[in-house]
Amino acid sequence: MLRAACRVRSEAATPYSVLQDFDNRSIPRQGPPRLARLRKKMSAIGLAGYLIPRADAYGGEWVAPCDRRLEWLTGFTGTAGLCIALEKRAAIFVDARYRIQAGLQVDRRAFETRGIDRLNAPRRKAVSTWLAENLEKGSVVGYDSWLHTRKEIGDLRSDLECGGLELKAVANLVDKIWMDRPPPPLGRVEPYPIEYSGETHESKRIRIANSALGGKSKAVLVASPESIAWLLNIRGSDIQRTPVAHAFAILNKDASVELFALPEKFCESARRHLEPNVCIRHPDALAGFLSSMSGPVLANESTLPDWIANRLYAAGVDIEFGDDPCEAPKATRNSVEVKGAAEAHLRDGAAMAEFLAWTHLNASKGITEIDAVRQLEKCRIETGALRDISFETIAASGPNGAIVHYNVTKQSNRKIRSGETLLVDSGGQYLDGTTDVTRTIGIGNVDPEIRMIYTLVVKGLIAVSQCRWPSGKTGIELDAFARYHLWMAGLDYGHSTGHGVGHFLGVHEGPQYLGPNSRAPIRPGMILSIEPGYYRDFKFGVRTENLAVVKKFTGASKKGDQEMLCFRTLTRVPIDISLLDLTRLNECERAWLNEYHASVLEDVAPRCSAMAKSWLKSACAPI
Amino acid sequence: MLRAACRVRSEAATPYSVLQDFDNRSIPRQGPPRLARLRKKMSAIGLAGYLIPRADAYGGEWVAPCDRRLEWLTGFTGTAGLCIALEKRAAIFVDARYRIQAGLQVDRRAFETRGIDRLNAPRRKAVSTWLAENLEKGSVVGYDSWLHTRKEIGDLRSDLECGGLELKAVANLVDKIWMDRPPPPLGRVEPYPIEYSGETHESKRIRIANSALGGKSKAVLVASPESIAWLLNIRGSDIQRTPVAHAFAILNKDASVELFALPEKFCESARRHLEPNVCIRHPDALAGFLSSMSGPVLANESTLPDWIANRLYAAGVDIEFGDDPCEAPKATRNSVEVKGAAEAHLRDGAAMAEFLAWTHLNASKGITEIDAVRQLEKCRIETGALRDISFETIAASGPNGAIVHYNVTKQSNRKIRSGETLLVDSGGQYLDGTTDVTRTIGIGNVDPEIRMIYTLVVKGLIAVSQCRWPSGKTGIELDAFARYHLWMAGLDYGHSTGHGVGHFLGVHEGPQYLGPNSRAPIRPGMILSIEPGYYRDFKFGVRTENLAVVKKFTGASKKGDQEMLCFRTLTRVPIDISLLDLTRLNECERAWLNEYHASVLEDVAPRCSAMAKSWLKSACAPI
Repeated sequence: MLRAACRVRSEAATPYSVLQDFDNRSIPRQGPPRLARLRKKMSAIGLAGYLIPRADAYGGEWVAPCDRRLEWLTGFTGTAGLCIALEKRAAIFVDARYRIQAGLQVDRRAFETRGIDRLNAPRRKAVSTWLAENLEKGSVVGYDSWLHTRKEIGDLRSDLECGGLELKAVANLVDKIWMDRPPPPLGRVEPYPIEYSGETHESKRIRIANSALGGKSKAVLVASPESIAWLLNIRGSDIQRTPVAHAFAILNKDASVELFALPEKFCESARRHLEPNVCIRHPDALAGFLSSMSGPVLANESTLPDWIANRLYAAGVDIEFGDDPCEAPKATRNSVEVKGAAEAHLRDGAAMAEFLAWTHLNASKGITEIDAVRQLEKCRIETGALRDISFETIAASGPNGAIVHYNVTKQSNRKIRSGETLLVDSGGQYLDGTTDVTRTIGIGNVDPEIRMIYTLVVKGLIAVSQCRWPSGKTGIELDAFARYHLWMAGLDYGHSTGHGVGHFLGVHEGPQYLGPNSRAPIRPGMILSIEPGYYRDFKFGVRTENLAVVKKFTGASKKGDQEMLCFRTLTRVPIDISLLDLTRLNECERAWLNEYHASVLEDVAPRCSAMAKSWLKSACAPI
Repeated sequence: MLRAACRVRSEAATPYSVLQDFDNRSIPRQGPPRLARLRKKMSAIGLAGYLIPRADAYGGEWVAPCDRRLEWLTGFTGTAGLCIALEKRAAIFVDARYRIQAGLQVDRRAFETRGIDRLNAPRRKAVSTWLAENLEKGSVVGYDSWLHTRKEIGDLRSDLECGGLELKAVANLVDKIWMDRPPPPLGRVEPYPIEYSGETHESKRIRIANSALGGKSKAVLVASPESIAWLLNIRGSDIQRTPVAHAFAILNKDASVELFALPEKFCESARRHLEPNVCIRHPDALAGFLSSMSGPVLANESTLPDWIANRLYAAGVDIEFGDDPCEAPKATRNSVEVKGAAEAHLRDGAAMAEFLAWTHLNASKGITEIDAVRQLEKCRIETGALRDISFETIAASGPNGAIVHYNVTKQSNRKIRSGETLLVDSGGQYLDGTTDVTRTIGIGNVDPEIRMIYTLVVKGLIAVSQCRWPSGKTGIELDAFARYHLWMAGLDYGHSTGHGVGHFLGVHEGPQYLGPNSRAPIRPGMILSIEPGYYRDFKFGVRTENLAVVKKFTGASKKGDQEMLCFRTLTRVPIDISLLDLTRLNECERAWLNEYHASVLEDVAPRCSAMAKSWLKSACAPI
């Protein structure tokens, strides 16, 4: 499926019939024999443990088929996780989103699933504690230095040294036993036009070189494919869902760039677009180039592969660790990008309206989750502008809603029943922007407790959407506003409230973030999701998500003395008012909802079919 | 004044007439000649800069007269700040609380005042940037290693080395030119009875030794006088306002303690209380003892004087840096302590009621801020249980309210006028607990904008007081709830929302904290202040503060699935309802206020005079 999608994405804007498949790739029984073969390899080189992360060398959430080592070994298909194989035990560490899923996808006799609290404790603590408990002092744990960042390895090493354990970079042991491992991707690289980016790559290169290389550093090593795509105004197709190319870039003081990526990916127009100041080099030349550099080289410890750091150090090249200098400028949209994102959301809103109207009409006719996913893909494709979906659509009915990142398979597929909720979290990749929207809809008469909780979740969405905050805040405060009403009812959710979203790039991009440990100030021009939810295992799940762009507050009611920021909601999709317990909404919340729905109707109805238009009118009726 | 207070505190529970003086100790014109003499000393030993912090070796907010070096040199009397003297320039770095005050107290031709943002940027960045801008590469900056913690110096050194500046520990240069510097304090140490502490020091020593010394560390070096006072159930009188003794303690694996403090401070009962497992040693023996230790020694980098760390390292003793193991247990009150704190608040509430009733009666008669301070002291002394006030009373009328930590002097004293607000922030030290309460009251007809803002502040207090949150949160979320209504009006305040409070100890104690960068989870038994405010320079200031103890939420309305924590308010003092804009309160907020005032009336009225009782009845009337 991936190949087909890649092929299509590298051709033109449209017509494939279905983007997602519904096969459960996970075959738990394959895990134990593969694990046994891995253990032989470990023991042959004296390793007591070996790390198998989900990540590839490029740190993205989606990885190419050749990089799906964690899935191949264990069966777990989630987008984040780490397996550790020891001689006798093996564990998969996953966060709250994947707790249920991991338990279902792996052979539990071979792999224990260990939850890690993404919000409150760094993964490494759970990992290092487990290793210290299960290994003798002096044991050696191996890892592939391409697949871990410098920071991960540095932190883990210091934790393990405390307990007398050694961490050692070795060749990838999974690759040695994965006989039919696919080749690396060769997705085409295309120029990203100025009418969508709003700034030439020359201007960006000069801007970043000036801001980042004013001090001692002689060059920036950019290890994030999203940053490279933004900096050079290119888009790639090496992986699903995120239009980036696998590459590493070095930005020099004179604003020229060395771009390490397979040259055959670049079509003639991409080459012309990059010339003369961006030099495409074969990845095989990276090692030699690194050794020839004069430092210090600026790099982000949290994206730089440990392999590159080791190589630089071995060559005596100093590294200055700091933020990726592209990250904040990339996240801070210019006016062309904001306009593009708004247009993408209107287009996507019309597709969602068609889908929701269809669901409304057909819910009682026994449609399934897979039917819903297919229909939604169809509606998005019919916009004529879809380049990809921005992630695997989550269409989770009833108890499946509690699996936060549920992806329906033929095995898990179920009919949508009356009295249940259907949670749909999905998005589209359009040239002018990336969308991400979640709606929970009620089918028939839904249990009053679920309606109550859904209402608290919507109140959280509204609280964040309409709040204002002083410049300089990082987002943990806004996260709290989304939870307040749930907390008062003794409820909470185990994920953060919002993430940054890229511009025809990754659906999860920093540095902005609504949650604990958010470090980067939220700035005007940044786009964030706002997505409170609630999940009751094996019962139900609700979530409501809008994307919004940050702007300065300039309302007529401004009377204060501080520069305040606020959100402008981009998403234009009705929120199911029939599932709300209206008695729990105050005047302000009703007013916000009515105003929101009026704007949805006004902006989206003109783009809809007669059927969707008629449904929109009732869905957007004032309450 | 301090000596009198110390003398009295070391005797018995009561009768001194006035605890505070109102002399402006600050004489700005003394600064420049003293600075000139300091510069001579600096230049004699080749220093381009010298650091003069407010802190003493014990890291408290209050320092003994012999340790008031910053005040002696510059005139600035605030409880936090750092002066840096260079050859030609000198600057005082103060946070938002002291921005106005520092500008008024120093000779601005000699000392520039530089604001540092306590909430968002560490002080050291402002300091190191300023030093790098004003010094040649290779310059040496001197400091007294007793007066800075290991962390401060470590951080600053790494910042400065980047810019080619050296940091060098030298003998204290202020002490060399301060001819009439007072001797170190000799306040008496008393045992703290079990009926107030609820746990013997033997039990505490064993508990902490077991929890902290299970690993490699052989001993804990406790550098915080509050931790020592808690651990050993002793209270001292070396400084004003906080009943601690200047001391350092070493807790051994066998739970015995070496206590380094001047032996003449310990009366016979204190010696008996500590025997046989706490050995009192002369501070002069500390250096030798440190050199004889076998490490690693566990210490908190943020309280350990740099001097001690240097000494240990010089002797080849390893230090394991970690949290002060007494800090969280000290903050987590046992039931005896919570009961004591509640009783202290009822007693203090009655004193506050007497004071507020008096203010109400006399406000129109031309009373001054000093009158208010004296009257409040009188009311607290008349409880018969006051050991000290817990900090200098802030009684700030009209524009003085904008000075967050205003202390009235004979020069600044002004009559309380109709149409203004009076902000009173004060507290008492009682054997059974420490109180801290702020009320803002309106005198006559107050401007509607001030009433509106006061109402938003009270709404913030209520939001935090009644909220519930899942176990494990650190307090930044609650800080946000206090600000929400102000933010929506374009307003904010520059301090954190709440701090921990000690048990007949410091009025500011961690690790709990409601604000950015709060790291320690809030646990049941912790006491916190909740004190939103708003300040408009040269115009007015409002703040409302209660103390509350954290407990598990067990309300009948609990329906959720999470363990939630909540507050139980300890403070029992009416909130001025006549200053509220009642139209801005919703039903929940009115209900909270009415319930709160009913409990104030019920709990406090029986302890009051007829006058106060009658005033309480109207002040606590339902709205």
